[in-house]
Amino acid sequence: MRLTQLFTKTSKTTPADETSKNAILLAQAGYIYKVMAGVYAYTPLGLRVIENIKNIVREEMNAVNGQEIIMSNLQPRETWEVTTRWDDEVVDVWFKTKLKDGTELGLAWSHEEAIVDMMKQFIHSYKDLPVSVYQFQTKLRNELRAKSGIMRGREFVMKDMYSMSVDVAQHDAYYNSVIEAYHRVYKRLGIGDDTYVTFASGGAFTKFSHEFQTVCDAGEDTIYVHRGKNIAINEEILDDESLEHLGIKRDELEEVKSSEVGNIFNFGTDKSKQMGFAFTNEQGEQQFVHLGSYGIGITRVMGVIAEKFADDKGLVWPANIAPAKVYIARLGDSPQVVKVSDELYQVLQNAGVGVLYDDRDSRAGEKFADADLIGIPYRVVISDKTVTAKRFEVKARTAQESQLLSQDELLKLLRTGLFTETNRTDK
Amino acid sequence: MRLTQLFTKTSKTTPADETSKNAILLAQAGYIYKVMAGVYAYTPLGLRVIENIKNIVREEMNAVNGQEIIMSNLQPRETWEVTTRWDDEVVDVWFKTKLKDGTELGLAWSHEEAIVDMMKQFIHSYKDLPVSVYQFQTKLRNELRAKSGIMRGREFVMKDMYSMSVDVAQHDAYYNSVIEAYHRVYKRLGIGDDTYVTFASGGAFTKFSHEFQTVCDAGEDTIYVHRGKNIAINEEILDDESLEHLGIKRDELEEVKSSEVGNIFNFGTDKSKQMGFAFTNEQGEQQFVHLGSYGIGITRVMGVIAEKFADDKGLVWPANIAPAKVYIARLGDSPQVVKVSDELYQVLQNAGVGVLYDDRDSRAGEKFADADLIGIPYRVVISDKTVTAKRFEVKARTAQESQLLSQDELLKLLRTGLFTETNRTDK
Repeated sequence: MRLTQLFTKTSKTTPADETSKNAILLAQAGYIYKVMAGVYAYTPLGLRVIENIKNIVREEMNAVNGQEIIMSNLQPRETWEVTTRWDDEVVDVWFKTKLKDGTELGLAWSHEEAIVDMMKQFIHSYKDLPVSVYQFQTKLRNELRAKSGIMRGREFVMKDMYSMSVDVAQHDAYYNSVIEAYHRVYKRLGIGDDTYVTFASGGAFTKFSHEFQTVCDAGEDTIYVHRGKNIAINEEILDDESLEHLGIKRDELEEVKSSEVGNIFNFGTDKSKQMGFAFTNEQGEQQFVHLGSYGIGITRVMGVIAEKFADDKGLVWPANIAPAKVYIARLGDSPQVVKVSDELYQVLQNAGVGVLYDDRDSRAGEKFADADLIGIPYRVVISDKTVTAKRFEVKARTAQESQLLSQDELLKLLRTGLFTETNRTDK
Repeated sequence: MRLTQLFTKTSKTTPADETSKNAILLAQAGYIYKVMAGVYAYTPLGLRVIENIKNIVREEMNAVNGQEIIMSNLQPRETWEVTTRWDDEVVDVWFKTKLKDGTELGLAWSHEEAIVDMMKQFIHSYKDLPVSVYQFQTKLRNELRAKSGIMRGREFVMKDMYSMSVDVAQHDAYYNSVIEAYHRVYKRLGIGDDTYVTFASGGAFTKFSHEFQTVCDAGEDTIYVHRGKNIAINEEILDDESLEHLGIKRDELEEVKSSEVGNIFNFGTDKSKQMGFAFTNEQGEQQFVHLGSYGIGITRVMGVIAEKFADDKGLVWPANIAPAKVYIARLGDSPQVVKVSDELYQVLQNAGVGVLYDDRDSRAGEKFADADLIGIPYRVVISDKTVTAKRFEVKARTAQESQLLSQDELLKLLRTGLFTETNRTDK
């Protein structure tokens, strides 16, 4: 995209009403617009990052046979009363509204009950199981405070998946396959090395639930990492019993700040019993469905990645989710510079490489500052000097030095460089 | 997708609580699940149709330089009070809710005011214009009644685009380019021949606004079509003055039932004046932005297409938006039939052709009925007989007769046949 066309502009001013690093940087760089506390609109750059994250998550959920659907925001009271979760004392983040006839409706903060209600229509026999469905849904949560930017909003995009199984063995096998799928997701998002399966408090059916936590200095959580076993323990369950259960010694653990980027949960047959969600087994007996739920906050992950990688110059996006791979900084508007810049823009687009083309009439320093603030992985400078030298001046966002490359070398770097970068941040 | 994997199932039973043809058929075929009146969830098949429609609309909006964004559902009162549209007497479809501190919020039924509020941050000079932004948004509307299935829901997906221009000439040029883009959209959706630009009542700034109406027996509107000029007139403005203005005689018009599939509107500088949305022109003077809005109800269009093309056997999707192009009906489970079916499934997927593979253990009649009900453009039957003949039995959804084709002939038919079909329904 040409920056002369893009309607957003970067801003040097720190937004007065933001305290979180992610919201400040994302607003300054033109990824988000604050509608109110905890509620953001996403501009073209922001939407591209969201879609890049969603596509990675979608591919990995499809790979574990997740079937994509989309549920509704509006929720009938009856669906949630069955499990007592309609009650504002039980769930304190409901937004509620009313039909014209006075009927109270809820706005979905989660979808477990809604999914079970729907799946009861389709699941009747053990032959219909296992099944797993997921959606990318805008959730609304009436949070008392909303000061963490897009990391904890009143309106946010979440991938929530729900698995249904005939028994513990089938459930466990699927649950473990999702843990592996989540690892692949975080690896592709560029946070694989620093994201740990973290043991957290379980429910009635399991000793532990599992969170995925990403090491991040600005994180709101504290976890205890076991680097040898590549797992972590949540602060709230760090006791002798848990340590023994996991076969870990206290002094093998390292305390770090972290941010939650996913959670998975085993409901057992709890909710199915409450909601009468049963199937007929091979022996013709009625049995309750085993339910699991698997969440990744898409906009939250975007916020975590923004905070984790940002430096004093601005955002630093991992290549796989950056809104573009290359930022072309065209310096000046001499005919040869315009010609070479326009041509490279076209060549890269034809090669399937996303480009932000800074064709604005602004000074070099401004263009470099914007390239850094927006956080595009590679900056390519084109000036009279580089054109005369028949080279491009190329710099990775996190590198100190630039290189002079031919077009072939640049294309090769974008292929191998991106590949290396993906490997570098991952295991 | 294999039907043994797909969690939805077709149903012979007409849903007791539905009266509209689109909702009945879409529910029976497994595209939607009714959450409550006017609120539907979309299953894998339904979501695919939505995404296919969205992708066509997205490409055409991008082609007229629309920049995709996503706004919020939650709306602050202040944004809408400025134009009096917060008032339930002025806008009677608001759903409203409250923050914990009692602050009232709205749930977006439209986004004009929200867009203007945001764009005020970015648009300051004539150099920033023209600009056009659009989104695919879930709108919530507190409709008194909701009996039209997905054609008029309380929760639905809409593409809404907003253009901002410096003056009437710039606005008109863009407005006309969107009319052309909308024609391309409807053509690609398979309803090009039967969709008319329809003159409807305008506002303060224009004599007419424009709707796009698709001829449809079950339509809720009546329009008067001028086949020679390829336009139509809305019932409410059919008077001598309008006819004279358009240079049309009453007896040249044909009365037909129709459904609205899009509308576009010129706000002039009305809303910009109310909301203080101004820019500096070349002479350094403050001027108000000219605003246009352009809507296509995505789920509504899906409903209209479902109703328009359905026959007594079920749905009939145009090839471009069908959830799959081919329905493989595997008859029996002899090793050779399974082998040939699995192979064709793979060959078609590799060729980029979407397939529903009926690998279920059910009778031929049941498979044929489901293929028709679900409305996939081409059905391919594979049985011991066809395998022995080294042919596939191929039938278009709307054809009476099937053909015996080799794999090469089938692939050729899918290429040319789809192309022909697209042409057939379009101009």
